[in-house]
Amino acid sequence: MHDKISVVGHTSLDYLFSVEKIAGPNESYPIIDYNTFYGGGAANVAAAIAALGGRSQLISAVGPDFEGSDYEIHLRDIGVDLSLMYTIEGEKNTSAFVYTDKEHNQCTYFHWGASRKFPELEPPCVDFVHLATADSVFNSRIAKKAKFVSFDPGQDLVTYSEDRLRTILENTNILFSNRHEIQRVCNILNVSFEDIKNMVDVVIVTYDSRGSVVYMDDKEYQIPVVEVEAADPTGAGDGYRAGFLVAYTEGYPLEICGRIGSTVASFVVESVGCQTSLPTWTQMKHRFETCFGPLVEPDKS
Amino acid sequence: MHDKISVVGHTSLDYLFSVEKIAGPNESYPIIDYNTFYGGGAANVAAAIAALGGRSQLISAVGPDFEGSDYEIHLRDIGVDLSLMYTIEGEKNTSAFVYTDKEHNQCTYFHWGASRKFPELEPPCVDFVHLATADSVFNSRIAKKAKFVSFDPGQDLVTYSEDRLRTILENTNILFSNRHEIQRVCNILNVSFEDIKNMVDVVIVTYDSRGSVVYMDDKEYQIPVVEVEAADPTGAGDGYRAGFLVAYTEGYPLEICGRIGSTVASFVVESVGCQTSLPTWTQMKHRFETCFGPLVEPDKS
Repeated sequence: MHDKISVVGHTSLDYLFSVEKIAGPNESYPIIDYNTFYGGGAANVAAAIAALGGRSQLISAVGPDFEGSDYEIHLRDIGVDLSLMYTIEGEKNTSAFVYTDKEHNQCTYFHWGASRKFPELEPPCVDFVHLATADSVFNSRIAKKAKFVSFDPGQDLVTYSEDRLRTILENTNILFSNRHEIQRVCNILNVSFEDIKNMVDVVIVTYDSRGSVVYMDDKEYQIPVVEVEAADPTGAGDGYRAGFLVAYTEGYPLEICGRIGSTVASFVVESVGCQTSLPTWTQMKHRFETCFGPLVEPDKS
Repeated sequence: MHDKISVVGHTSLDYLFSVEKIAGPNESYPIIDYNTFYGGGAANVAAAIAALGGRSQLISAVGPDFEGSDYEIHLRDIGVDLSLMYTIEGEKNTSAFVYTDKEHNQCTYFHWGASRKFPELEPPCVDFVHLATADSVFNSRIAKKAKFVSFDPGQDLVTYSEDRLRTILENTNILFSNRHEIQRVCNILNVSFEDIKNMVDVVIVTYDSRGSVVYMDDKEYQIPVVEVEAADPTGAGDGYRAGFLVAYTEGYPLEICGRIGSTVASFVVESVGCQTSLPTWTQMKHRFETCFGPLVEPDKS
């Protein structure tokens, strides 16, 4: 198939600070060091798809400061199609400022910035869309237009009304979710997990270090985590989604899609930042085969 | 005289955030808006001197990211001599991240960055130096070399040893300080305020909204605050110092130097950011004369 995958959601610049202490009201503490990292769920997925050699297109709202920035150059260089990005005049890029102290306590300030204009934007017609966590209004409208929908409600699920969530799920072919989110989806719609499975072709539920489960019809496939020395778990889920979707559009069986997702995630967690160590298809294949045995190309006849 | 004033200390990029709430450990809150501002005590003073038409030179340690940055262009455009800046490879610019919530609670994270290399740097020989708050090692060494020293220990006073503080003060001609700092200087050196006045030609003590007092020999001059609608008090002291020093090098009497300082400060507080609304000499003169009557040029014969 080798479809182009259009990924909708946040493109965010993340500031990660190492500090002496988390500062409360009227307190002041030194920063030991900090760095900026490329982030935002949609950009993470689009970049990982492109690194694997897939065709990805990113649909995000960004500020005018994005144009010509290092982040734009990075995405372009890696091969992400940026022709459908929205530049919002007078808004800044989406960003997060994350402070971690010596005892690993963390606090976060996040800025929606340009992303808060999503509800006002007219979505394009695309064939294969992956809805990374973002705005429910825009997501429900693009889901109705697209031929194939992959959906990852993520942490923004709290902002979805019952109506919009139902609209998206009625158009969804693949649903990604962690175990807390799938429970919340059921609660919002007042349905059971069985109902969700009947509504959507493929449901994937992730369980952190215990791996993931891919559900389709009456079958379920247990997908283990590919164990590595993890430097930073952030972005693992996005890597998983990217690997799964590339494999899916290539026609691999679902269990193999899950294992490829799990393998891609193992690269992401080896470095700090969500887009710092994205594997090529060859690198992914090598590690996959070490863990799971030969990766047999799907029969495309 | 119209001396060049070399200003030593921080050049900092300040991030000011307006947030829903100050985030404690393991909390996450949205940013309503944020902006970056040009700051750092030394850069504030140098920029204000240049805006007034004085000759200023900035001596700061900055990261390689400073070169070609908007901040560098701003300082160059305003007329600050940047030929003695230190670029520190592998370090970032000095910066501060300040969060203010809806109840005006504030917390700050600050990053010394390139400034932490000051103790390792060899100070240049300069004629007229203003030591804005920064590193005590570098400051004590440059004070010994300079012909004329203006000193503002500021918030970094806590990092000064008795020896270094004494070395600087023995070489200081003008001392700027707020009422808390002057008490701390006396405590560190175990001397009285009278002793300080005997050690230094001119001592200026600021009392926030109650104005400042200029002490020289047995005389003291009460300098009122120039009242305006204040948007942000940050940087007022730096504006005062810049105005005072330009007037001093032009040969104005001490009382007029203080009033010019107070007038410059009144411009700084009218906008958010320390270098957002710096007055020209003509603008300063106009407001000065509204408050204090004619500004008579000093007799230079």
